[in-house]
Amino acid sequence: MGVVLPFGEKGEGGRASLQPLLDLVAPDMERINETILSHAQSHVDMIPQLAGHLINSGGKRLRPMLTLATSRMFGYGGEHHIPLATAVEFMHTATLLHDDVVDESDWRRGKKAARLIWGNQASVLVGDYLLGQAFKMMVETGILEALRIMSDAAAIIAEGEVLQLAAQNDISTTEDAYLQVIDAKTAALFSAAAELGAAVAERPHEEKEALISYGRNLGIAFQLVDDALDYAGESDKLGKATGDDFREGKITLPVVLSYRRGSGDERAFWKRVMEKGEQKEGDLEQALEIMSRHDAISGTMERARHYGAIARDAMAWFPQSGPRDALMEAVDFCIARVS
Amino acid sequence: MGVVLPFGEKGEGGRASLQPLLDLVAPDMERINETILSHAQSHVDMIPQLAGHLINSGGKRLRPMLTLATSRMFGYGGEHHIPLATAVEFMHTATLLHDDVVDESDWRRGKKAARLIWGNQASVLVGDYLLGQAFKMMVETGILEALRIMSDAAAIIAEGEVLQLAAQNDISTTEDAYLQVIDAKTAALFSAAAELGAAVAERPHEEKEALISYGRNLGIAFQLVDDALDYAGESDKLGKATGDDFREGKITLPVVLSYRRGSGDERAFWKRVMEKGEQKEGDLEQALEIMSRHDAISGTMERARHYGAIARDAMAWFPQSGPRDALMEAVDFCIARVS
Repeated sequence: MGVVLPFGEKGEGGRASLQPLLDLVAPDMERINETILSHAQSHVDMIPQLAGHLINSGGKRLRPMLTLATSRMFGYGGEHHIPLATAVEFMHTATLLHDDVVDESDWRRGKKAARLIWGNQASVLVGDYLLGQAFKMMVETGILEALRIMSDAAAIIAEGEVLQLAAQNDISTTEDAYLQVIDAKTAALFSAAAELGAAVAERPHEEKEALISYGRNLGIAFQLVDDALDYAGESDKLGKATGDDFREGKITLPVVLSYRRGSGDERAFWKRVMEKGEQKEGDLEQALEIMSRHDAISGTMERARHYGAIARDAMAWFPQSGPRDALMEAVDFCIARVS
Repeated sequence: MGVVLPFGEKGEGGRASLQPLLDLVAPDMERINETILSHAQSHVDMIPQLAGHLINSGGKRLRPMLTLATSRMFGYGGEHHIPLATAVEFMHTATLLHDDVVDESDWRRGKKAARLIWGNQASVLVGDYLLGQAFKMMVETGILEALRIMSDAAAIIAEGEVLQLAAQNDISTTEDAYLQVIDAKTAALFSAAAELGAAVAERPHEEKEALISYGRNLGIAFQLVDDALDYAGESDKLGKATGDDFREGKITLPVVLSYRRGSGDERAFWKRVMEKGEQKEGDLEQALEIMSRHDAISGTMERARHYGAIARDAMAWFPQSGPRDALMEAVDFCIARVS
């Protein structure tokens, strides 16, 4: 039931890698990790325990990397990119905590979801705490523009989550409606993270706009690949089991495409398993078969490549440089994430 | 089972009233209400529905009033106190939404809790949305000091809530530990709301400190009175039934005092009903009897008057004026809230 995902395109051929980006931000990432640890401290034990569980759970920290790399691209020589990038990671972590409560998820990155260990209540509150810390860190930089970017993002993300909740299990969700959701709940933070690099380096309007476009389209591509991987990936590499979205009844693009391209019988199948939540053994296999019949996963990857291309073109606004190229290659890496 | 609560002290005798404060802020409160409505809007229907349920539920809006009244006291002539006071109310509303989820409360101000109508998930997310909007409004004022005050408060409030969660149902909670919780979860926002008036009017350090002290001590007094009212109040006036805290197993000061002042048998009673949560018919009546025996409710009110006195003395730093006196009388009103 595996699906071969095409590699991302790369200028000189060969496999896209995250390594150039990782190398670029490595010294800063050490400082991010220290800042994360020091700001997740509290005399209330449950806070560092729960925050640490998520923060140390081996996420790639792609979002703060965007802030660091875009700052570097502008040759920013100050210190403020560190707290700002940390604030991005904290806001992301807070969102994950609240997300898991809302989705009633049991797993996150291959580890038990925090809510299963410490309870939904602690997950809600520690999420709030991390959000408060994120804003505190930004205030300390004194960069009002950064606070504008991130408070806008916070409101958009929450709005997107409510939208998703309202449309939950609605099998008639259109591709456009689905894009609206991921634009808000995933792309907004990618976009904000990239824009912060321009804000901290006080770059002109058109450069900010280019980074907003880069981050946004990268975020959409990233989410679509995630959606595809949930049906096509190998569970041990992803930290989540194949079919998690299916079992939770989450309407993602592979399902949207399958439903819309499907026959009457197939549509009845999707209604039963996703809308009514009536799932029985063999249903996931049948879902994968229908998806394969209608090229729903490769179709999702096609869409992802489209947004990836927009992200790359957005970066083309900037003159060639190591950081710029690393940010462009990161797009390809995200699309070719099956290793 | 009612308990007569002493009236607040008032300079010229008679009953303390909130009317001077209400009159002072009336024109501004109209604008606050408009700002609340316009900023709780969203194309995602659930957001204005759920936010409206709480926002229109007849709270006194004491917290934003503190920002408005302290700004007025300084003769502030600008416009920024409106969005800042609205941000205070939004942060409070967000806290209530998350609180109800954490406490699994069924009622809020005499209305069904939002979580029972729209679900825990929506309550978490709309809370996040309102918090995002609060920060957006503050960013629009461009007053970094206001953002500092409110992001500090957000982190402290969340930390206090986690602390309370960790100590939940712990009958051996000391008075000091309990004070630490309400200092964070209630007093921090009162304090921030009052301090914002000094921030917006760019007042010197010692005046900020005076307002911080006023807000903090008023907040502690307010919460203690709330705790007393939960055992002593008439349910229809409070919007919550007598004994709500008891039934939820919430350790508040009347329980802390009763437990510590009580006999071995009484302590066993409290352990059973609060710590083990084993409650049967007649237990609330017995709790009230034990409280009465040990003056636990009047003791709680004594403590409240102590903090109220500190709040009044903090205001005495400022020269006599209508706004100052209204803010002082508001302290007495909060303490004499049984009408």
